Amino acid sequence: MPHQIVYSFDCVSPWSYIGYHVLQRYSEKWPIKIDWQPSSLAYVMKFANNQPPVSVPNKGAHMIHLLQAADRMYGVKLKIPSKFPFVTFPVMGMLRVMKERYPQKLNEMINKCLHEIWHVGHHELDREALEKILQPTFTAEEISTLLNTAFSKETRRLLAQEAEALVDQGAFGFPWIVATRESDRASVAAFGVEQVERIAAFLHEPYLGPMASGVTPRL
Amino acid sequence: MPHQIVYSFDCVSPWSYIGYHVLQRYSEKWPIKIDWQPSSLAYVMKFANNQPPVSVPNKGAHMIHLLQAADRMYGVKLKIPSKFPFVTFPVMGMLRVMKERYPQKLNEMINKCLHEIWHVGHHELDREALEKILQPTFTAEEISTLLNTAFSKETRRLLAQEAEALVDQGAFGFPWIVATRESDRASVAAFGVEQVERIAAFLHEPYLGPMASGVTPRL
Repeated sequence: MPHQIVYSFDCVSPWSYIGYHVLQRYSEKWPIKIDWQPSSLAYVMKFANNQPPVSVPNKGAHMIHLLQAADRMYGVKLKIPSKFPFVTFPVMGMLRVMKERYPQKLNEMINKCLHEIWHVGHHELDREALEKILQPTFTAEEISTLLNTAFSKETRRLLAQEAEALVDQGAFGFPWIVATRESDRASVAAFGVEQVERIAAFLHEPYLGPMASGVTPRL
Repeated sequence: MPHQIVYSFDCVSPWSYIGYHVLQRYSEKWPIKIDWQPSSLAYVMKFANNQPPVSVPNKGAHMIHLLQAADRMYGVKLKIPSKFPFVTFPVMGMLRVMKERYPQKLNEMINKCLHEIWHVGHHELDREALEKILQPTFTAEEISTLLNTAFSKETRRLLAQEAEALVDQGAFGFPWIVATRESDRASVAAFGVEQVERIAAFLHEPYLGPMASGVTPRL
């Protein structure tokens, strides 16, 4: 059995987008199975009593500097949206339903939504935008059912409930990464892409940098 | 000319202790000159309008987890003090005066103070504790002058003024690390020991992990 990683993320978080790509690379280098877990950062921040980095002006400015270099540091080109943070209940609700009903399509849909937000620059995905994302893969009837469920009170309640469970397990921001080691099934929790090295140390796998290539990126 | 690193730190910060050791290791691997800059984290937090990690319970708990593994992850064994945060104006004032008057002794004194706080577990260093640290190296008269200056209003004013300058340059916590590249004298600012990899990327030097050995630590 391989190591297991549960990757809790929200599309509002640029670090979730970056970490998604970094861990994809590691999934080809390490014996790991990744469970992508669409969740609500807004609820996690609320239940953990946390504030976004932008609430401290210098912290926000530092994050912008880091994101501006994300293409060279992490090999992930992204646009910083004019409005930030933004609401992601529709898209995270859709991805949550996707995980439940069409798990084999989840990865493709996460990739499309993250790309649409952080690369195309279309950040607040509404019903119409989600329909366009789903159209190549699903029938009109399937899309209608998926989105009705995604926008239901029940889905919103589940997002809140799952966020509360994450906070009970220690989360305070995203991406929240829980790695379980193959040898003894022990687990470690990590916050953010800067802790992938710590996950490597815990799994007893080599740390190969953000490109998972063993080469230090160049800024 | 080598690359230059200005390392702003406060003894209250366990990450300053860890980063001090990590960067010492890199100073033997990379062509860098490190300028150790004793500063006041309390003033930086105040001027940056920032809150300590412990103000968000899960963030504080996560930091404790990280620190408990610091010996294996960073090769730095440390005791987590029962009282945290604690006041460091006396010790940071002393180190600031040391840098000005006996720069060739600064590194030895930083090492002793950090060791006393984070290894021996004697965290709130008062006049008596500082005297003991200084005794092997200085005469009674020199110690008296050093500590009178360290505890003066003028030193406190300078710590505040220098913290304000750091915040103007973008700092919001410690260690705050500014690296200047040899080739074009361009600079990058980094927060914390988890960004040493980013400094490596900026300096175009290989990232060799926290042990600066090229080997991933094991947790």
